[in-house]
Amino acid sequence: MKLKLTIAYDGSFFAGWQSQCHGNTVQDTLERAFTQIAGGRIIVYGASRTDAGVHAIGQVAHVDLGEVSQKMSSPKRWQIALNASLPPQVRILRAERISEQFHARFSAHSKIYRYCLWHEDILPPLLYQRAWQIHGPLNIALMSSMANALVGTHDFRGFTARSGSKRENTIRTLYCVKVLKRGKEVQLIFHGNGFLYHMVRMLVGAMVHVARGTLLREEFVQRLTAATPSIAPRSAPAAGLYLTRVLYQKK
Amino acid sequence: MKLKLTIAYDGSFFAGWQSQCHGNTVQDTLERAFTQIAGGRIIVYGASRTDAGVHAIGQVAHVDLGEVSQKMSSPKRWQIALNASLPPQVRILRAERISEQFHARFSAHSKIYRYCLWHEDILPPLLYQRAWQIHGPLNIALMSSMANALVGTHDFRGFTARSGSKRENTIRTLYCVKVLKRGKEVQLIFHGNGFLYHMVRMLVGAMVHVARGTLLREEFVQRLTAATPSIAPRSAPAAGLYLTRVLYQKK
Repeated sequence: MKLKLTIAYDGSFFAGWQSQCHGNTVQDTLERAFTQIAGGRIIVYGASRTDAGVHAIGQVAHVDLGEVSQKMSSPKRWQIALNASLPPQVRILRAERISEQFHARFSAHSKIYRYCLWHEDILPPLLYQRAWQIHGPLNIALMSSMANALVGTHDFRGFTARSGSKRENTIRTLYCVKVLKRGKEVQLIFHGNGFLYHMVRMLVGAMVHVARGTLLREEFVQRLTAATPSIAPRSAPAAGLYLTRVLYQKK
Repeated sequence: MKLKLTIAYDGSFFAGWQSQCHGNTVQDTLERAFTQIAGGRIIVYGASRTDAGVHAIGQVAHVDLGEVSQKMSSPKRWQIALNASLPPQVRILRAERISEQFHARFSAHSKIYRYCLWHEDILPPLLYQRAWQIHGPLNIALMSSMANALVGTHDFRGFTARSGSKRENTIRTLYCVKVLKRGKEVQLIFHGNGFLYHMVRMLVGAMVHVARGTLLREEFVQRLTAATPSIAPRSAPAAGLYLTRVLYQKK
């Protein structure tokens, strides 16, 4: 039996999604919970390998339970058992049986990320490690116009931290990019068919620098159209980023 | 010079407001910051002695800077120096010069508390230590009718954890009590001229128990009208409580 899991976590508690030797990652934490319940090792495949500090409202993962599922076949019971075993900083929001062809990462149609800015001199304690605090002026209208320019298919080579090989496909499509201002909070929403390593954080970093007047809008546009990886724009910190949703084609 | 400070903090990081031997309280943390800046000891007087785990959006405190203020007389500079010295889990939102007669606690006209419930089987990780998760049915209409019954002047002897002496004045006036439902979140707002020890948490506890059918509405009303401290209603956990605002008479 294959399970599709929808997962939320507080990224400030973990060293990112992907398994590491020290074991303090979301994947390691989930795999330990599965091992505790099932006995044998079960690998958890996530849709997005979020960085240390990045939060998730709706991460998706799959697990192949194989013969273990003969002991416990109800997804709901797995969800309850997992949540009972996991720390409160990570929760299984949904568990459902899924076809053998499903792969959390490769079957994903698109993803939605949200980035949270706090535009005031003082970051409220309850937003600590949950938003990027911006001092001084911030041109929201300019950010919105940049958001519009981002929509569509572009070569995002200029907005990834991993240079990688030149043969890597760095073309992605953004379906929707929005800037929402509610009081001192500014939310940036990105919906795209895929995201390169650090892409959202580098886009936010560049947008904020243009909105603060420390980067020219032309440089941003040039980086987008000429796909120049030369000048590295400053990345926005991980703590303001939220993986909101992973979408799959309905069959 | 006397300073009025408006303070926010993440209650999960501290063992409450009031100074204790171990020093891990908000008052101790603030006094250490003052000592670091000013040299001598400065006592910080808070409007409300919030319990361990209780958050503050707008706590108010005062300090008498005495001769220290000759060195640094601008409230804004004190605010900046304090925030630079304090951990990010506590922030000075405002610092202003106030008359010598002002006392954060005794001059307070009224206070507003907010209590946050999460009505779903799973508590989102980002609400961990910030809301009280309620399982099963919850009659919101019944909670609203209880909120209406609470408005006015009552003897709240039945809603305090500290029995104290019988001569203690346990009469308080609630100006406004509201139940606001936004999706799975239910917020309870209490605006009153004063609150007894654990009063909000015991009111919320009783309201939730009535709304879940584990306590009769009549028992709640009787406790309010007869001011019977006999049966102790279960307190709501500290983590869902927020001190939102302390109000003072304008002069």
